[in-house]
Amino acid sequence: MLDRHPIAAASLRDIVAAVSSGRSTPEREIAAAKERVAAADGEIGAFLRLAPEASLAAASAASGPLAGVTIGVKDIYDTRDMATEHGSPVYRGYRPVADAALVSMARLAGAAILGKTTTTEFASLDPTPTRNPRNLSHTPGGSSSGSAAAVAAGMVPLAFGSQTGGSVIRPASFCGVAGYKPSFRLLPTVGMKTFSYTLDTAGLFAATAGDLAVAAKAITGRDLAAPVPADAAGLTVGLYRSSVDFEVRPEMLAAVEEAARLMEGAGARIVELEEPAALAEARASHGIVQGFEAVMALSDEYRNHHDEIGPMVAAILDDAARLEPAAYDAARRAARVGRKAASALFESVDVILAPSALGAAPVTLASTGDAMMNKLWTLTGNPVVNVPGFAGEEGLPLGVSVIARFGRDARALAIAALLQNLVTPQ
Amino acid sequence: MLDRHPIAAASLRDIVAAVSSGRSTPEREIAAAKERVAAADGEIGAFLRLAPEASLAAASAASGPLAGVTIGVKDIYDTRDMATEHGSPVYRGYRPVADAALVSMARLAGAAILGKTTTTEFASLDPTPTRNPRNLSHTPGGSSSGSAAAVAAGMVPLAFGSQTGGSVIRPASFCGVAGYKPSFRLLPTVGMKTFSYTLDTAGLFAATAGDLAVAAKAITGRDLAAPVPADAAGLTVGLYRSSVDFEVRPEMLAAVEEAARLMEGAGARIVELEEPAALAEARASHGIVQGFEAVMALSDEYRNHHDEIGPMVAAILDDAARLEPAAYDAARRAARVGRKAASALFESVDVILAPSALGAAPVTLASTGDAMMNKLWTLTGNPVVNVPGFAGEEGLPLGVSVIARFGRDARALAIAALLQNLVTPQ
Repeated sequence: MLDRHPIAAASLRDIVAAVSSGRSTPEREIAAAKERVAAADGEIGAFLRLAPEASLAAASAASGPLAGVTIGVKDIYDTRDMATEHGSPVYRGYRPVADAALVSMARLAGAAILGKTTTTEFASLDPTPTRNPRNLSHTPGGSSSGSAAAVAAGMVPLAFGSQTGGSVIRPASFCGVAGYKPSFRLLPTVGMKTFSYTLDTAGLFAATAGDLAVAAKAITGRDLAAPVPADAAGLTVGLYRSSVDFEVRPEMLAAVEEAARLMEGAGARIVELEEPAALAEARASHGIVQGFEAVMALSDEYRNHHDEIGPMVAAILDDAARLEPAAYDAARRAARVGRKAASALFESVDVILAPSALGAAPVTLASTGDAMMNKLWTLTGNPVVNVPGFAGEEGLPLGVSVIARFGRDARALAIAALLQNLVTPQ
Repeated sequence: MLDRHPIAAASLRDIVAAVSSGRSTPEREIAAAKERVAAADGEIGAFLRLAPEASLAAASAASGPLAGVTIGVKDIYDTRDMATEHGSPVYRGYRPVADAALVSMARLAGAAILGKTTTTEFASLDPTPTRNPRNLSHTPGGSSSGSAAAVAAGMVPLAFGSQTGGSVIRPASFCGVAGYKPSFRLLPTVGMKTFSYTLDTAGLFAATAGDLAVAAKAITGRDLAAPVPADAAGLTVGLYRSSVDFEVRPEMLAAVEEAARLMEGAGARIVELEEPAALAEARASHGIVQGFEAVMALSDEYRNHHDEIGPMVAAILDDAARLEPAAYDAARRAARVGRKAASALFESVDVILAPSALGAAPVTLASTGDAMMNKLWTLTGNPVVNVPGFAGEEGLPLGVSVIARFGRDARALAIAALLQNLVTPQ
């Protein structure tokens, strides 16, 4: 699989360098991406639809820091030129008036929105038919299934996803690509289908942490592409020991230990961090916050289309519809306390390392896996970057999360790029 | 004007009592509201369109705590059965798939969505043709122009608006109705057009603060309709002296003083509160937060429809498009500091009184007035209730804001109801 769908087929920085130096053109890059999709997507099923020719012609004439960069966009982001179906029969054929904010900003930066990628219904749990490019009988993870798979199969150098529990970092880990869940609200979620408005976070997939930084900088105009340090001298790295680590597979624990050893070998000081009680409580409150808000956000769909929506998202909403406001308010308070506790962790460490998932991608297309390792950091809003390049016993990818203090996205991306260089020397 | 468009024509609590006791029916209340609109709206221009007969027939058969209550919904809220145009030619005829969360929740409570009310374009500044029912040559305020006017003219007992600067409290003051800007995120904004995602706040209009409390409780299931105290004994009320009070007209300052005297006469202790520097700085940061987010939220409309959108909102976006991320980040920090300073104010007082606008509604339809008195509390997220019943020299309405600690919405509504009882004895 790795040979048939090599990541090297679509390196964002290579494309940007080739286009800016005149060695390639946006038109050529867009045509190449279309060819890669035509060759690979029959068995992967990452894309739902490609952009109309007129849009791609316009993108071929675009300039900007992302000219020539093709993007796969999760189908919960509004697009002015393509249907936006939120993975749901309720939205079959729905065509928005305007692009989502992030889509519009990417076009302004010169990028080509190549097409829309699969999403579980309303970015929840009901799986799509998308397959994991690393092994077709395994899930790519979810809910950003198509975006992770499209990048993993080398079809596009960049894809947009979203994370409410673990929907960016987990599929990135399962598919062996870099994934970035920014600090809460760093990337706008306007025009993205809402599930939980205090949790929904726009995120990115690319082959490497370095590519993520280049893309995030170009889209936001923020200085997110800090120089990647040559080594880890002077860095203090926390190894996070959570209260739910007993659920993590040994191969994933070994990957995190390997990451720590690599950082230590590069000069970092490694410290153990026992999970504070406030963060264990915050993790336990995630589901209540998510469910209570989803019942409001999807009130019309839930009440008027209950029999049409998928069984997994329906079950989440059925459970959550019984929650009282007082339970939600208590969960939000636990989240606030958790956010402060998370900030306090970074008084003694520069970044934290933690598993990006419980283990490698499960051998099933009937489940997208478990968000247990991700939902705490979604709730606290800390930036997380999945570093790919680790491998389990069967050769399936394993990812390690680099977590930084809220707002320190540039640091998370730079240290993730360092770790990726250490685990996968160029 | 007051005789021709009496507020008493549509009292929410009277309607709820009549329907629940069997003295009226939802069908009769909906028919009566349609008649009031037919009679009054020709000269007011509050409604853009009324719901199709099938929707009103369904609402006639509805049950729930708001059965028989007709609602005017600002045209930035998605409605499944009516166009939703955001006050903009860009969205002419746009029909959403699903109701906005608040609209759906109101229907679940039994209410009838009677129709869509005028809004300035994207809830910004370009005025609508709507007239102030208290004097047709004056603005009703904005951006929730139609919702405030529809309630003031007695057409509907309840209307939905939104506030990013002062778009609920100011038009409520100008039109002489009660207005409620809840604690940030108490009411969901999902399905409401985004201008600024850290400021946009869903809000309500009704004839009285008591009506607002009944409606808010029925829609949210929260205990927001606390008993209205018989007097103000034991309450400490802060008279807020802001750094921008020099802009407030004498008649409005007199109205606030009158409110304080009424509360004092009812047993309250009145204390003067000088504005902390942190709150003056927070107010000054509002425009940067709003503008920077609006440029992202409206990225597509701004870039692709610049010549179609109104001159006032275009000018705001043109200015804001030059803001650097660092300026926005600094403004957000000022807002965070301001939020803490706002909470500290309520360690010594139960509620704060402040002007709801600079003065009475200006004699123009070319401007919706100024949000100077409101934008600080939108930024801090504190609940604010406009209490009507005060009057200026020309007999035009003046409103006084009752402001409470974040999350103390029930207190704000109850004390506002007390003040309204004092100024307008039943």
